[in-house]
Amino acid sequence: MDVLTLNCGSSSVKYQLYRWSEKRILAKGIVERVTIGGSFIKHEVPGRDSVKIQSECPTHKEAIELILKTLTDPEIGVISDVKEVKAVGHRVVHGGEKFNKSVLVTDEALKTFEELQDLAPLHNPPNIMGIRAAMSILPDVPHVAVMDTAWHQTMPEHAFIYALPREWYEKYHIRRYGFHGTSFLYVAKRTAVLLGKNPFETNVVIAHLGNGASIDAVKNGISVDTSMGFTPLEGLVMGTRAGDHDAAIDLYMMERLGLSTKEMNDVLNKKSGVFGITNGKYTDRRDVEVAADEGDHLAQLAIAIETYRLKKYISSYMGVLGRVDAIVFTAGVGEMGPIFREKALDGLENFGVVIDKRKNNISLTRNAETDITGDGSKIKVFVIPTDEELVMTEDTVAIMEGRYDVHTNFTY
Amino acid sequence: MDVLTLNCGSSSVKYQLYRWSEKRILAKGIVERVTIGGSFIKHEVPGRDSVKIQSECPTHKEAIELILKTLTDPEIGVISDVKEVKAVGHRVVHGGEKFNKSVLVTDEALKTFEELQDLAPLHNPPNIMGIRAAMSILPDVPHVAVMDTAWHQTMPEHAFIYALPREWYEKYHIRRYGFHGTSFLYVAKRTAVLLGKNPFETNVVIAHLGNGASIDAVKNGISVDTSMGFTPLEGLVMGTRAGDHDAAIDLYMMERLGLSTKEMNDVLNKKSGVFGITNGKYTDRRDVEVAADEGDHLAQLAIAIETYRLKKYISSYMGVLGRVDAIVFTAGVGEMGPIFREKALDGLENFGVVIDKRKNNISLTRNAETDITGDGSKIKVFVIPTDEELVMTEDTVAIMEGRYDVHTNFTY
Ligand SMILES: Nc1ncnc2c1ncn2[C@@H]1O[C@H](COP(=O)(O)OP(=O)(O)O)[C@@H](O)[C@H]1O
Ligand SMILES: Nc1ncnc2c1ncn2[C@@H]1O[C@H](COP(=O)(O)OP(=O)(O)O)[C@@H](O)[C@H]1O
Repeated sequence: MDVLTLNCGSSSVKYQLYRWSEKRILAKGIVERVTIGGSFIKHEVPGRDSVKIQSECPTHKEAIELILKTLTDPEIGVISDVKEVKAVGHRVVHGGEKFNKSVLVTDEALKTFEELQDLAPLHNPPNIMGIRAAMSILPDVPHVAVMDTAWHQTMPEHAFIYALPREWYEKYHIRRYGFHGTSFLYVAKRTAVLLGKNPFETNVVIAHLGNGASIDAVKNGISVDTSMGFTPLEGLVMGTRAGDHDAAIDLYMMERLGLSTKEMNDVLNKKSGVFGITNGKYTDRRDVEVAADEGDHLAQLAIAIETYRLKKYISSYMGVLGRVDAIVFTAGVGEMGPIFREKALDGLENFGVVIDKRKNNISLTRNAETDITGDGSKIKVFVIPTDEELVMTEDTVAIMEGRYDVHTNFTY
Repeated sequence: MDVLTLNCGSSSVKYQLYRWSEKRILAKGIVERVTIGGSFIKHEVPGRDSVKIQSECPTHKEAIELILKTLTDPEIGVISDVKEVKAVGHRVVHGGEKFNKSVLVTDEALKTFEELQDLAPLHNPPNIMGIRAAMSILPDVPHVAVMDTAWHQTMPEHAFIYALPREWYEKYHIRRYGFHGTSFLYVAKRTAVLLGKNPFETNVVIAHLGNGASIDAVKNGISVDTSMGFTPLEGLVMGTRAGDHDAAIDLYMMERLGLSTKEMNDVLNKKSGVFGITNGKYTDRRDVEVAADEGDHLAQLAIAIETYRLKKYISSYMGVLGRVDAIVFTAGVGEMGPIFREKALDGLENFGVVIDKRKNNISLTRNAETDITGDGSKIKVFVIPTDEELVMTEDTVAIMEGRYDVHTNFTY
């Protein structure tokens, strides 16, 4: 059984085709510049050179058709017929309070996603467009939706309710939802495996540090708090997002600069974070590292702020958990940025956290799980490459096979 | 030498007259409803019944005249002549980046406070009005300004710079300033005394929990981070302020409800916090406690959220400090709310924090310092009633006597 997973962004579609019976990836890739002209597909098959093919995709439908055409291509493809695709798993950013686990896409589910567009105006519309397109092209297979927010639906009320007018929650659904849930679920699972512990007795702090970044407190196998909130803006310093800051600043600057709410939203999401700190010079942490080494003060400051605020969150979640088995880093910066990991844990020896600097420095790959715990550390420190596609595939197969339980009930 | 301290709010003036040679308070009190009609003075002299006298104060000038008239009244007064007042200490909320310690009020200092009005539009104008009025009534004595922000000017760059556009800092002075500094300075001093340690080798986390609330990380005697930010909105959940929340919510709700920046500012500062969580029912934590005991779910939730978020900050600042000598509670809720203290530290045993529940439960007064540390705790836990007036008096005297150094250079 081959399972296709799709992740539709506003101008891109990521895909992966997975052969469940053999537990291996047949192919994966991305269609970029969808809807904006100059579209192309980048297609990767393990063991072969990757290929890039131009082909206009005015909508997500053409992008998905291009993916299927590529997958079945006699030369560069990996299957002979689209009929081999037995199910499709779709990433959906926002599941609101309605979904605490993955679901089979039905008309009713689609209607609910559409109602939730309000809460995730940038993310859900392309997700839904992708589902509709894929269903029209592959009408005879089950389609499953996997939500970023579902994993965090176990958070207790005192963690998800804001100190804002009660009516905003009751009438407008303003609360902490949290994101990156599929990644956290995967990493929480793998952590329990690496510890050789029952996942439901495992407490972990997981830092997902990509371009977007968030952190998760996992207690006895379930998410109890996370740093992203109603939207992905809250929490850690990110590539271009501000993360936590005094909200009164926004109102003050809107007045001073005469900005609209939309313009301010853009500044906070696209012109802040590392980009803001470095005066618009950098977003990618690799560039920041190089510039910092060369003495660029604002680049040094960006690293200092990002890692300082990460340390504050890690300490804070250690307090929330009481007992912590492991601290885990994942995603681009988490997997490949030793200096970020080192600085984020610097000075936490009194909390029982020590890393092995040598092991940390050589843990630079997206392909291997590494234990960077130092001598005498009471708490394990791991680097675990995330694999959201695998979770999407697993959930899809489990739903098809009628053995899908609550998403938290994982056995690995 | 008698020193008068004044704290001018928008519609109130608090005062205290202190006899330096005898180290004792002669009188203190408050003029309420200044500028809004129905003004009265509440005057307290240790050992006597307090008195309340009606007297209209259309401006802060009349309020200060009323204070001086009351202090010199043959019946209820405590001095025979205003000439006994040898200096006046004034509270000023915002000192920007210009002031890292108290200063003698000169024309130049006044000009700077006026330039800073922009940063603290609600607080600085009445402070300045009060200074001008007091100087016209008592032109021959030195006037000293004591700033809430001064104490926090020792914060490192990575703690005070936000991940916002660099230009906002350089051009508009957007940064973390922090408030409640006079209180933190006092409590940090007293903590070192209680520990019998050199203040410059003392690490403390101080929670100032009044109607407004903030928390301070003190490392080797100086402030290195604090929860309030550009304005007092950021950080902990307060009586009516939201504290930390996803700033994207504000922009979203402004759109949905058609609110202006000013209206949103009002909601976040006056209709949120405990008031918001309880759907507008409570602000005072005493009322919240009673309602929670009677089973009111939103009151229980308000306590749960307030203390949970406080615990997160305490843990976070413990991580920042690395080694912590003491955790200290101060101000209304901190001094008189055992349940808040207990819940805020609950589950931090792994961090070496244990309180003595009995001692905690009987520590309910604003007049005594108590040690509520439990058996086996590695970290001391104290309740220390704050005394901002004393710091104002000390700074004023030290400046008059020409022995005022950096504000951090305290010897008690
Ligand atoms: N060697 C490296 N050192 C530090 N950061 C890196 C390194 N390689 C990649 N990154 C960071 O990883 C981020 C992308 O992370 P990733 O998880 O792939 O992204 P996304 O959040 O977009 O899914 C980039 O912003 C880049 O800064
Ligand atoms: N017994 C008590 N238990 C809990 N909270 C209390 C108690 N007494 C007073 N408070 C709280 O103290 C707060 C006022 O603190 P205070 O430091 O005096 O105020 P401010 O911040 O206005 O200077 C009030 O909001 C009230 O909720």
